Amino acid sequence: MLTVLFSAQAELWDSYRPALTAAFAEAGLEAELVQAAAPELVDYIVFAPNGPVSDFGPYTRAKAALGLWAGVEQIVDNPTLRMPLCRMVDQGLRDGMREWVAGQVLRHHLGLDGIIAPPKPGLWVPEFPPLARDRHVGILGLGELGAACAETLLGLGFPLSGWSRRPKALPGVDCLHGEDGLRRLLARSDILVLLLPLTTETENLLNADTLARLPKGAVILNPGRGALIDDAALLEALDSGHIAHATLDVFRIEPLPAEHPFWAHPRVTVSPHIASSTRPETAARVIAENIRRGEVGAPFLHLVDKTQGY
Amino acid sequence: MLTVLFSAQAELWDSYRPALTAAFAEAGLEAELVQAAAPELVDYIVFAPNGPVSDFGPYTRAKAALGLWAGVEQIVDNPTLRMPLCRMVDQGLRDGMREWVAGQVLRHHLGLDGIIAPPKPGLWVPEFPPLARDRHVGILGLGELGAACAETLLGLGFPLSGWSRRPKALPGVDCLHGEDGLRRLLARSDILVLLLPLTTETENLLNADTLARLPKGAVILNPGRGALIDDAALLEALDSGHIAHATLDVFRIEPLPAEHPFWAHPRVTVSPHIASSTRPETAARVIAENIRRGEVGAPFLHLVDKTQGY
Repeated sequence: MLTVLFSAQAELWDSYRPALTAAFAEAGLEAELVQAAAPELVDYIVFAPNGPVSDFGPYTRAKAALGLWAGVEQIVDNPTLRMPLCRMVDQGLRDGMREWVAGQVLRHHLGLDGIIAPPKPGLWVPEFPPLARDRHVGILGLGELGAACAETLLGLGFPLSGWSRRPKALPGVDCLHGEDGLRRLLARSDILVLLLPLTTETENLLNADTLARLPKGAVILNPGRGALIDDAALLEALDSGHIAHATLDVFRIEPLPAEHPFWAHPRVTVSPHIASSTRPETAARVIAENIRRGEVGAPFLHLVDKTQGY
Repeated sequence: MLTVLFSAQAELWDSYRPALTAAFAEAGLEAELVQAAAPELVDYIVFAPNGPVSDFGPYTRAKAALGLWAGVEQIVDNPTLRMPLCRMVDQGLRDGMREWVAGQVLRHHLGLDGIIAPPKPGLWVPEFPPLARDRHVGILGLGELGAACAETLLGLGFPLSGWSRRPKALPGVDCLHGEDGLRRLLARSDILVLLLPLTTETENLLNADTLARLPKGAVILNPGRGALIDDAALLEALDSGHIAHATLDVFRIEPLPAEHPFWAHPRVTVSPHIASSTRPETAARVIAENIRRGEVGAPFLHLVDKTQGY
């Protein structure tokens, strides 16, 4: 019987316990899911960054730390984490992100805000947006989520550029990389979507210099990580009108403090970190599959490269 | 040299004259586009329902009346119209409709209104919408526009039912027809999209009886024709809360009069007939192709069946 420690917020237990128990059974695993155990008896740790375990040192027997979230920046540098670390790549999370990004891109593309809350109700002012084929979207980050969003936006007819640190290839997407590639992508992006992991290299990637390289009137969507953006530089670019709007789902501090200027800014939409969430049923199957792999000595899925940080 | 009469609103002349002239040249047609001519010398009539020609009788030589719009209900019963009548099926119009419908479906699916204009700004209330795979969309009308929207919504992951008067088949769509099919579609549609042509059979198709068959909390999108809906019945269903929201792009009278209750209703979004519009460049190519066909005796594209009304 394997011992699997659940080290995430207590309020997740009620949804994850049945989902994980069912997934273990489905995978043929004899495993017990517990909220507490003697560290030296734990075989696998299912964790969220804000769960109870922060010192992984005593978990000498654990074969892997299996994350429930896609982002691992809060744990990857933990010096006590000597076991393999896996990120969550969940179909539900991926689909939720595709839907949020498609919805927000179309909202800005179609000018829905002016229809939903017209400045002068009762006034009939037909204005036709351009077609998607004439609106360029740039995606920063071409991992699982960026690639899924690219596929969806291509299906809607948007011409797309994508950028990643290392060269990648995606059908239908103009894939760029490196400093020069970033500048080229920014210069042509009417709508920019941030889906990079947070690392020391991507922190503040959107700053005064890079914001200035976007076309005037560009729109920014950030469903990735709050610290990808230099908040002060963004506020300045919004105030000057160079950036028309920013729809932000993630922030340096969450919940976003009530006094933060993003809340009241007329060109900012605050979305309370809902772009996507791990879904217990699909995520539990990913955890179970990784435990099965650990038990037969097969390579883990979604293993984090700790030197890269993601 | 062919004489092509342009019988549409004067303000369209500036955009359509160059587009049609270019398309005629591209198709190798020797044709002159004019705003007025002796009726008996006109070879083809390019028309919009509110253009100057309403008596087609004197145009004895004209081989076809080529419409600029998709809807023909204002002209199909004109007894003076004895020549063939063609609707416009324009790639730009089709793409615009796909984008509007996808944007509005995602807006309601994701609950964007509450994010764009939060009831209590500064309050962080994460609420996760279901995934598209758990939200059923019904499309009434599976013509060019309905089929294009179905394809786009399928790409976004929504399960779809479609309904048309006569049996149709579309990949991935549960295609229904007839009275019984309509009832089945309504019963399962969380979001209902109206894309039927307006005929005596479809007028007031959405009435007190059919609205009651939708699930409680359903959302209605009407980018089709205003008279598909019984306005009074819709207002009643919105007031009772049975229908959660209606986003209407078309109305019995346009512009929608400022005193119409739709403007002020908290559960209605008025969109000023912008879901889609014929685009001069792409539409001009369709007109030119039909004139080319007329000249070589080939069947016209998008020929209206006057007995069916569309």
